[in-house]
Amino acid sequence: MNNKGILIVVSGFSGAGKGTLMKALMERYDNYALSISATTRNPRNGEADGREYFFRTVEEFEKMIAQEELIEYAKYVDNYYGTPKAYVMEQLQAGKDVVLEIEIQGALKVKEKFPDTLLLFVTPPSAEELKRRLIGRGTETMDVIKSRLERAVEESQGMDKYDYLVNNDDFETCVQEMHRIIQAEHDRVFRNGDFISRIRKELEAMGKEQ
Amino acid sequence: MNNKGILIVVSGFSGAGKGTLMKALMERYDNYALSISATTRNPRNGEADGREYFFRTVEEFEKMIAQEELIEYAKYVDNYYGTPKAYVMEQLQAGKDVVLEIEIQGALKVKEKFPDTLLLFVTPPSAEELKRRLIGRGTETMDVIKSRLERAVEESQGMDKYDYLVNNDDFETCVQEMHRIIQAEHDRVFRNGDFISRIRKELEAMGKEQ
Repeated sequence: MNNKGILIVVSGFSGAGKGTLMKALMERYDNYALSISATTRNPRNGEADGREYFFRTVEEFEKMIAQEELIEYAKYVDNYYGTPKAYVMEQLQAGKDVVLEIEIQGALKVKEKFPDTLLLFVTPPSAEELKRRLIGRGTETMDVIKSRLERAVEESQGMDKYDYLVNNDDFETCVQEMHRIIQAEHDRVFRNGDFISRIRKELEAMGKEQ
Repeated sequence: MNNKGILIVVSGFSGAGKGTLMKALMERYDNYALSISATTRNPRNGEADGREYFFRTVEEFEKMIAQEELIEYAKYVDNYYGTPKAYVMEQLQAGKDVVLEIEIQGALKVKEKFPDTLLLFVTPPSAEELKRRLIGRGTETMDVIKSRLERAVEESQGMDKYDYLVNNDDFETCVQEMHRIIQAEHDRVFRNGDFISRIRKELEAMGKEQ
C-alpha cells in the first residue's frame, strides 16, 4: 500500500544470474530504477557516462567520498566503485524502487546507513548448478571458475544477513518471485507508519463526534 | 522457495472484510487451510461440528486447556473460543499455509508461542470507509456500530505489532495482495535455514574436491 520507493540491494553468487534478472525486472515493470555506480576505471568500448557508470577521475571520486556523496564505496585492485547518493534519493522520492547490485560488504554498509533497505540474495538451486552455469558461460578459464567458487564459499557465510533468498532455478519464476517479494514489502507495517497514524487519528475523531 | 507451511494470523477491524477475504483465499488457491476453532457455544442452525467449529462442552474445553491442546483461547461472555493445536500442526506439516482469524490479544499470544507466525492486519482505506461499510451491512443497530468503532480505536493501537498491513480498498486487489505477501514470505531467509546449510556444505565440499 505504501507508494514510497524502497531501496533494494541485490547480491548473490557470481554466476547466479543477477545481471539478467535485474535487466528483466527493469524491462518488465516500470516501478524500478537501477542505481548507476560511479567508478574511476576507464570506460570500455560502448560504455557511456551516466548509463553504465558515472566515470570519474580519482580526484573527483575522492572528493565525493570526502563530501559524503556516496552511500557506499569500495576499492578493487586500483579502481574505486561506489553508489552516488543523489541519484538514488531522487529516484526513491519519485516513488521508484531503487535496485543496487553490490556484494555483501557493501550491502551491509548500506543497511547500516539505511535500515529500511531490503536485502535480497540470489542463489542457484545448488552448488552443482552454480558450477555448471559458470562452466557453461564458456568465457572463463577454469582458474577463474575455481576462484569464483572459492568466493562463493565465503559469500555463503553471509547469506543469513539478508532478508530474502531468491532461488534462480527457473528464470521466469524467479523474475516474478523477485517482483512479488519487493511489492509485498511495500505492505510491511514499518513502512506504513503514516497510514497507521492517519487512520488512528480518524478513528479517534470519529469516536468523539458521536 | 520454502515449502513448509506458514502459520498466519489475520486480524483487523470489524467491518474490514476479513471473512470474505479468507473465503476468497481458500477458494482460489489450494495452498491454504483455514484453522477451525473450538467453542463451547451452541451450534447455530446449519453449523456442523468440525466445519464451522469444533463444538465442545465446557468440561471438554477445560480439559483441552489443561492438556495444552490449544494454541490460544479466550472467554467471551460465557463461552470459550480457542484454536486446537493438533489440526494446525497437521496442516502445517502437510505443507499448507494455515490461516487463523483471531483478534489482537490472541494474535500476540500465538506469535509468542510460535515466533515464525506471520501477522497480517486487514484495514479499510480510511475510518470513514469503515463506518460506511458497517452501516451498509444494514444488519447492525447504530449502537452496535458505535461499539465496533470504539473497539476499532483500541485495535488501531496494536496495528504496529503486526508484520504487514493489508489495505482492503478494492477487494480483488486485496485478495491478490494477501496471497502475494504470504507467498513472498516463504522466501524469507529465516524460513530457509535448511537450504542455506545445504548449499554451504555443497560449496565447501566442492572447494575441497578441486
